[in-house]
Amino acid sequence: VEAGDRAQLTEWMEPLHPADIADLLEQISASDRRRLVQLYDREFDGDILSELDESIREEVIAALHPEILADAVRDLDSDDVVDLVEDMDAPQQAVILGALEDADRVAVQQALSYPEYSAGRLMQRETIAAPEHWTVGDAIDFMRNSTELPEQFYHVILVDPRMHPVGNVTLGKIMAAYRATPLRDLVEDMFQVIPATQDEADVAYAFNQYHLISAPVVDDEGRLVGVITIDDAMSVLDEEHEEDIMRLAGVHEESSLSDTIFEAAKGRALWLFVNLLTAILASLVIDMFAETINQMVALAVLMPIVASMGGNAGTQTMTVAVRALATRDLTAQNAMRVVVREMSVGALNGLVFGLLMALVAGFWFGVPMLAAVIGLAMLLTQISAALGGIVIPMFLDRMKIDPALASGPFVTTITDVVGFFAFLGLASWILL
Amino acid sequence: VEAGDRAQLTEWMEPLHPADIADLLEQISASDRRRLVQLYDREFDGDILSELDESIREEVIAALHPEILADAVRDLDSDDVVDLVEDMDAPQQAVILGALEDADRVAVQQALSYPEYSAGRLMQRETIAAPEHWTVGDAIDFMRNSTELPEQFYHVILVDPRMHPVGNVTLGKIMAAYRATPLRDLVEDMFQVIPATQDEADVAYAFNQYHLISAPVVDDEGRLVGVITIDDAMSVLDEEHEEDIMRLAGVHEESSLSDTIFEAAKGRALWLFVNLLTAILASLVIDMFAETINQMVALAVLMPIVASMGGNAGTQTMTVAVRALATRDLTAQNAMRVVVREMSVGALNGLVFGLLMALVAGFWFGVPMLAAVIGLAMLLTQISAALGGIVIPMFLDRMKIDPALASGPFVTTITDVVGFFAFLGLASWILL
Repeated sequence: VEAGDRAQLTEWMEPLHPADIADLLEQISASDRRRLVQLYDREFDGDILSELDESIREEVIAALHPEILADAVRDLDSDDVVDLVEDMDAPQQAVILGALEDADRVAVQQALSYPEYSAGRLMQRETIAAPEHWTVGDAIDFMRNSTELPEQFYHVILVDPRMHPVGNVTLGKIMAAYRATPLRDLVEDMFQVIPATQDEADVAYAFNQYHLISAPVVDDEGRLVGVITIDDAMSVLDEEHEEDIMRLAGVHEESSLSDTIFEAAKGRALWLFVNLLTAILASLVIDMFAETINQMVALAVLMPIVASMGGNAGTQTMTVAVRALATRDLTAQNAMRVVVREMSVGALNGLVFGLLMALVAGFWFGVPMLAAVIGLAMLLTQISAALGGIVIPMFLDRMKIDPALASGPFVTTITDVVGFFAFLGLASWILL
Repeated sequence: VEAGDRAQLTEWMEPLHPADIADLLEQISASDRRRLVQLYDREFDGDILSELDESIREEVIAALHPEILADAVRDLDSDDVVDLVEDMDAPQQAVILGALEDADRVAVQQALSYPEYSAGRLMQRETIAAPEHWTVGDAIDFMRNSTELPEQFYHVILVDPRMHPVGNVTLGKIMAAYRATPLRDLVEDMFQVIPATQDEADVAYAFNQYHLISAPVVDDEGRLVGVITIDDAMSVLDEEHEEDIMRLAGVHEESSLSDTIFEAAKGRALWLFVNLLTAILASLVIDMFAETINQMVALAVLMPIVASMGGNAGTQTMTVAVRALATRDLTAQNAMRVVVREMSVGALNGLVFGLLMALVAGFWFGVPMLAAVIGLAMLLTQISAALGGIVIPMFLDRMKIDPALASGPFVTTITDVVGFFAFLGLASWILL
């Protein structure tokens, strides 16, 4: 199909959803992408741009004719345009903004005036608000006479005379009620107002926790400035998860399969470098016991087991802690209980696996005291892994540092150092 | 507050959302929980049960009076009741089902007849369907005359005479149109029908990918049987993420902070056991070179660095691969390109960190050939870590095994074995 047949390509792409076209563009090679975009340009839809990964998006924008780009952008909702331009550099941003109609441009610029990752950036400005005293009939007539209703909306927002939101009425309730019913009688129990400066992660949390469908956004004075809908919150939740999972593994959170080799390597190098430092630190511990190892080479054979088991237990506890902090299940109220619990879990598994490993080492090397040493070292390492795995994320969270980002290196350092020190130290003390 | 003052407790809990009360119950100790539930029982809301973690939920149900439990359950939507009873054992399930009205009980039992984690379990049975030929006025009159409309609904589903869904009309469009407008003229472009047997993970993917708000669910014959709304899809997405993140870290995916110590230890023991086996395997490799280490103890000091860097790089690549498989960014089409890319990334970082580590080892031990050996071993380990990190998840996915669950042990085994083998093997070959 990429052989240059524009008509056939267009026909073939016709039934695809913009999100699928974006996925397709992400999966093919850069040269195929450029050709495809240029062949398909007459039909190019702004929604495809919204769905693209950032790195690819810039490439596609560069490949599009300015006029086609302008057409594509004009069709988008204002919140999608904000999403599109917020990471662009100034000249490219100016091109896109220049393509918009005046009203849209003002809306986009106003949204950009809110901090990055805030509710103000996420919201759509188009809302349906109604004075508190309106009836169902007033609302229906108002909507029938509006020329520009939002693409998607689920609630009519009741506002007081100062434009402060006071309640949500679902469209379903309005539809089922008689025209004379006051809207006030139909408001939902659950009503949350979101400040425009609130962090988008907190917005996603509120939607997920309280099963919100849409929520009004207000400015500093409490006046209605926009609305956030659940589909926006769902994307944010998805991104936050992606970020957590990537950060836990030490991969730059904006990495994607369409990065170049060099970008991808760079995105992972920082963590590898930190890991190198902690690994060298652990090696220094081993070096302290070089003489002991020289006298009993079995120690060198067994020591990675202690460290590896510790690292694993530490990662487990840390992941549980990071998740619990993100879902706000771990709070100041239950912190102490959770720490004690994790240490008990570590001690329990330390006992089980320490005993198991002691048996293995005993049979393998036939030195009972070596078996005792590795069992004891395993127990100590498991307990400290649990302690490090829970306390470090909690501490970083208290310091306002994302625990998913920074916990890993600290936890690994602790488990490696404790593991080697406990095993080799006990060995040199008991065995030699 | 837990001192027994029922009136004050009720007053204090009054403004809290059921989800917050559930969180509170999860965070306090078991004895406080029992007392709080018994004090608060008159006001106990079914939604609190829905929001609770499974392990806690059983405890709370046991603490509630049967009558209060029955009252609480009767207020719930049928999909919430399904969620509540699906993991219960038969006698407890019978108690809850017995408390329901006949129609609700049939609905719940029908939902339970669909496979676990399917769209049929997730959907709500209450839908608003309209014949294709209806007008806006017909729909409004129908809704005004209905006594039992669903709690939340966003679309009127158009159906043909055989009850096959043919289109969605948003309530907003209906509201803005005149009474004579045929519903057919207002249908949305984007319309996805979900088979009742579809896996809930695929449902969540479709909602996220196509920005769906609600989608009709159909049976084997294509007849409308229910509807899934975006808030259900959002919870599934959240659970899937939780599962991925927990499985990647080797923690049982249903673990929660409210598990007992014994449950928590058990939930992590499997992975620790697998890790023990792979660590012993790696130790066997070291044991093969015991003689070499005996001649040069510096090898024992440095070898954990090679393995640790390999393990890290493997985890990074594996996480990227698992995520890309979950989001369907990694497919059969681009598999080859991604494998080559990952290996190049591994080679690039292998070169950088191999060189760096060679310098460190050179200065540390003053043996140029040792420096060369560790540098080369690092390069080999980084490349094989990248290869293992990408190929293993892809292979498991092809075998229909969740890559998040099983990739870790395989990848670690590869990086450990290759790391120790490359470093010690090269050392015994070149240095001695």
